[in-house]
Amino acid sequence: MQRSEVVPAGTVLSRIATPADLRALGPDELDALAGEIRDFLVQQVSRRGGHLGPNLGVVELTLALHRVFDSPSDPVLFDTGHQAYVHKIVTGRAGDFDRLRTRGGLSGYPNRAESPHDWIENSHASTSLSYADGMAKAFALRGEHDRTVVAVIGDGALTGGMAWEALNNIAAAKDRPVVVVLNDNGRSYAPTIGGMAQKMAALRLRPGYEQMLAQVKATVERTPVVGPPLYSGLHAAKTAVKDWLLPPAMFSDLGLKYVGPIDGHDIAGLELALSQARGFRGPVLVHVLTDKGRGYAPAEQDDAELMHSPPAFDPATGQPVAAASTTWTQVFGRELVRIGTVRPDVVAITAAMAGPTGLQPFGRAFGDRLFDVGIAEQHAVASAAGLALGGMHPVVAVYATFLNRAFDQLLLDAAMHRLPVTVVLDRAGVTGEDGPSHHGMWDLSLAAMVPGLRVAAPRDAVSLAAELDEAVAVQDGPTLLRFPKGAVPAPVLAVRRIPPTGIDAGFDAETGAETAPAGAAADGELGPFGAIDVLAEPGPDRAAEVLLVAVGAFGATAVEVAERLAAQGISVRAVDPRWVLPVPAALVELARGHRLVVTLEDGGRSGGVGAAVADALAGTGVPVRILGLPQQFLEPAPRAELLRDLGLSAQAIARGITEQIAGLTESTGGTAKRVAADAG
Amino acid sequence: MQRSEVVPAGTVLSRIATPADLRALGPDELDALAGEIRDFLVQQVSRRGGHLGPNLGVVELTLALHRVFDSPSDPVLFDTGHQAYVHKIVTGRAGDFDRLRTRGGLSGYPNRAESPHDWIENSHASTSLSYADGMAKAFALRGEHDRTVVAVIGDGALTGGMAWEALNNIAAAKDRPVVVVLNDNGRSYAPTIGGMAQKMAALRLRPGYEQMLAQVKATVERTPVVGPPLYSGLHAAKTAVKDWLLPPAMFSDLGLKYVGPIDGHDIAGLELALSQARGFRGPVLVHVLTDKGRGYAPAEQDDAELMHSPPAFDPATGQPVAAASTTWTQVFGRELVRIGTVRPDVVAITAAMAGPTGLQPFGRAFGDRLFDVGIAEQHAVASAAGLALGGMHPVVAVYATFLNRAFDQLLLDAAMHRLPVTVVLDRAGVTGEDGPSHHGMWDLSLAAMVPGLRVAAPRDAVSLAAELDEAVAVQDGPTLLRFPKGAVPAPVLAVRRIPPTGIDAGFDAETGAETAPAGAAADGELGPFGAIDVLAEPGPDRAAEVLLVAVGAFGATAVEVAERLAAQGISVRAVDPRWVLPVPAALVELARGHRLVVTLEDGGRSGGVGAAVADALAGTGVPVRILGLPQQFLEPAPRAELLRDLGLSAQAIARGITEQIAGLTESTGGTAKRVAADAG
Repeated sequence: MQRSEVVPAGTVLSRIATPADLRALGPDELDALAGEIRDFLVQQVSRRGGHLGPNLGVVELTLALHRVFDSPSDPVLFDTGHQAYVHKIVTGRAGDFDRLRTRGGLSGYPNRAESPHDWIENSHASTSLSYADGMAKAFALRGEHDRTVVAVIGDGALTGGMAWEALNNIAAAKDRPVVVVLNDNGRSYAPTIGGMAQKMAALRLRPGYEQMLAQVKATVERTPVVGPPLYSGLHAAKTAVKDWLLPPAMFSDLGLKYVGPIDGHDIAGLELALSQARGFRGPVLVHVLTDKGRGYAPAEQDDAELMHSPPAFDPATGQPVAAASTTWTQVFGRELVRIGTVRPDVVAITAAMAGPTGLQPFGRAFGDRLFDVGIAEQHAVASAAGLALGGMHPVVAVYATFLNRAFDQLLLDAAMHRLPVTVVLDRAGVTGEDGPSHHGMWDLSLAAMVPGLRVAAPRDAVSLAAELDEAVAVQDGPTLLRFPKGAVPAPVLAVRRIPPTGIDAGFDAETGAETAPAGAAADGELGPFGAIDVLAEPGPDRAAEVLLVAVGAFGATAVEVAERLAAQGISVRAVDPRWVLPVPAALVELARGHRLVVTLEDGGRSGGVGAAVADALAGTGVPVRILGLPQQFLEPAPRAELLRDLGLSAQAIARGITEQIAGLTESTGGTAKRVAADAG
Repeated sequence: MQRSEVVPAGTVLSRIATPADLRALGPDELDALAGEIRDFLVQQVSRRGGHLGPNLGVVELTLALHRVFDSPSDPVLFDTGHQAYVHKIVTGRAGDFDRLRTRGGLSGYPNRAESPHDWIENSHASTSLSYADGMAKAFALRGEHDRTVVAVIGDGALTGGMAWEALNNIAAAKDRPVVVVLNDNGRSYAPTIGGMAQKMAALRLRPGYEQMLAQVKATVERTPVVGPPLYSGLHAAKTAVKDWLLPPAMFSDLGLKYVGPIDGHDIAGLELALSQARGFRGPVLVHVLTDKGRGYAPAEQDDAELMHSPPAFDPATGQPVAAASTTWTQVFGRELVRIGTVRPDVVAITAAMAGPTGLQPFGRAFGDRLFDVGIAEQHAVASAAGLALGGMHPVVAVYATFLNRAFDQLLLDAAMHRLPVTVVLDRAGVTGEDGPSHHGMWDLSLAAMVPGLRVAAPRDAVSLAAELDEAVAVQDGPTLLRFPKGAVPAPVLAVRRIPPTGIDAGFDAETGAETAPAGAAADGELGPFGAIDVLAEPGPDRAAEVLLVAVGAFGATAVEVAERLAAQGISVRAVDPRWVLPVPAALVELARGHRLVVTLEDGGRSGGVGAAVADALAGTGVPVRILGLPQQFLEPAPRAELLRDLGLSAQAIARGITEQIAGLTESTGGTAKRVAADAG
């Protein structure tokens, strides 16, 4: 049933094409299947990387879910979605795992185009309960009362406020069947934080827990469940599961029935609990304890979270197969430690991702100055505003795409209050295989909307260090730094630095409107704000025709474009404005006299840096060509490949400019024609 | 001490200049003061309107807070901020209430420029606890262990997920003194919803509650508290307050100490509880029961929430002094009921504001199809996505500025999933006296970023009805309608309708990129998407020089501008693109041949409709002048006044165009100069 070159013939796994096939299995076959799936996951993920730890933890849970519930009529939703590999395996997609996370291959997340068992696609954390609430409301209105909505959510995602909003709504309707499966492994990326996590941890340690598991095992025959599980048949054992321990009253206070905690690696116990939950026909929470990375030693002993989503690795050892280059993340982490040493007021905030965002070294060096707030970007930014009011300079480090969740807080709580909060965005721009929800292509457009926010995009490790220094020196408002995923490039040296004009980057204290000088020192010294680094220039005897304005990591690309165009006789000046928003006045001055300005950015074109430059240059008559990401949901693909396809390789950019210069030369007058072309 | 023309001489109130003055008062004087403050609030708010009900509910609570805590060293934060009038009165600002909510006068929210007692300014709901967590962290790091942070938050704001994120963090640190005062009046705007609210309501009804209050009153002498309240002296009575009732275990599960519930109109009981809380030196929640509108009959009996924030009214009766005009809100509410009658799949979602957003008639007509999700915009939009997956067509109605909170959900959960969710934004554009956080000036820029989102801006009641019909007919993705606050204008009739070109407003199913025809019917019939209403044209013998593109309510302004310019011999065509984003292809065609295109919108200039039009026209050589709101925080002021000051009155717009046309005529060639000028 599965492609035999991927799924070995003769295995139990090879016989599983749909969830119905699971229901025909006996207990020994189920155990065998769980083992086969674990081996399969390690082998397949080791080839190109992917989410390993989370999926190893939910093997038995996923099998039990698909034996008890009737997917897709009963929608099974996976919060965040990166723990849906097992779900994919048992819904007919095991044979596609040799093309996992490849372009046109199997998505690393649920995908509606792949299977009717996938109801929602990849997204940010803590959304599954909201979807579930909406679907349950729809089914109730349509009279489809036999359907149950199941949402599997980690304890980490439960620290996100959106999950609380949803629980409060789910719990309020006693007759809408929603089963919330709390997959509690005590970790999000890092160990889950907060008062709730402390409560959960205490629950795990209760002495009654092991006894309960033993009694459940003794009571329940591990009989295969064929068709809908028989609620009445399991009734006798139910008291063994429920009310054995005092449940966390917070759930029952809300009005949610609570079942658990359940051993998440005991299929029979899971089926019993899930059957109970399904039979209840109302909102119920099933608390399941799982071990992230279960059954694969390198993933089980993984304090650094390297096996959460590793790159390609040797399955025997768990070691990565490629030598690691120094990443942007590592440079940021190192520089923040340097700053922390001399600036005791600098504190760091992470939304449950101290490791992935490079904050772990800061935490090791200055333990009480690193705050993990949970998967809670709203609170990360607003509590940073509070820290700033209290006299600290907070640095909030998140992935670029997650800034979407904290726009209102950045706007009103940080910027409107003119508080010195520094936001550092990793994974800005095209990120690669995680797909549309994880490309960091929204942050520049959001940042451009925020009055009084200064935005820097370092082009290399050297400028990252310098611009981070500049950011934490700002006292009159928020700053934002953004850089992409992956290896930091070789330094891109500046030919010279153009000083800021006198009117740069000051903000009116009341409104955030740009007004007075700030970065430029009064004596004409080169201040950081509004200064422009020139990366390439034509020879001294020649004026530049084209001004290339490169945002961040496009600095290296711009130098290459300049070289290519020079070879064709087109003279180019390539610059890095460093602090790209607001648009430096010196850039507007510099642009005059060029025939064409081309902006390069790794963000959506709508309202980004290019749009701001075009607006600033509108009165000059110099045409502006905006090159950036098309305002579309981009598919998962390697960064270099995707940029090339979007016309953002040095070759494609040079070709486009050559054509446009030819067009300008043909047109009468030769001035004032502004041509902006889509990058897509 | 207070200006006697505002605060009557001889009153207790006239002697209160700082919180310290409160501590010298005896119980009778405190009671007298509470009464005087209520009369003062009713009189002052009746003059021009303002937040009345919330402030009448917190008179005693605010007095107790300022007697127990040492503001501003102990920061007292008011969530949302509209219930800070009493705080303003007792911190030296009673004499300024004759200029409440006037330009340059007393803000309707806390304002740092007014007083050191104001730590944070107006913002959206549920932020106070995040600020408090950050400030407490800062004070701890700085060794300022004697300071306590106090946050007053309503039960409504506690339904916002951000509050949960903050509570989870506040509770985790046992040694950081944060006092969360839960101001529980059972209402946000409407009665608070959700599982938590049900629990709270049950708690209010416990038989022990009245007995507890009686015992507290018998035990505690109502002695004036001079200096810091004496914790030990009150110790004897403490068991009377705490643990009398089973507290909501959700708070203690989190690790928050719980005190309450306390009668929020009994100053002595409040002081006892707050003193306990202050003495605890850790995170504690004080549950206070208050009556919104207390002491003023029209506000106490106010099921329709008319006294939450009334316009100017007669203090004797509570009746508004001006006759009400029909509002945009009312038209929307009426039209949605019409649609609901014929479309059983249409459901409505409100974030605790069914009345203010016009959804109450829909709720009355179709009870089970209106969902109030609490002050939870994230969940509102994501659960709408779930409803759409379940086969419904949800209409989410929120104020425009609150869409900031749900950008990520609109982008990923609705648009990336291509789900037919309609978002209706009231209070879009300049709103008036509520100030910078409430002007609805961010939504168009956000909407322009979202692939596959269609955006309509009706110009009058007729087009609102038509465009709402068109929105709920869309099946392949989200739609958004936005209209301003206030009275709907007289109908602005179209001279003619320009049909869409064949390539309009279709979206690629995978990426959301604009591609195939959608709105335009195959036979050339006028479909809704991409069609353009012409509102004014020069006579048949004359070509138009200027194309005015009016967004929404600026339609009427555009007609007036056209008339003014015609009188000066400048021929103008004024159009309403109806579905303003994505930019209709027919608009690009139409623009060719004009000397100048001017866009008019009631939103921030960065990345808005004007920017999108300029980008779409970049290849045509036609200059585009973008008129919109400057990307700044705008002060509170009446809408018409603020628009005039920003150069967005018909007179100012006409003058600007006249000057620009003169400039174009002077310039050589006369084509292709794109000039965009700031509206500010």
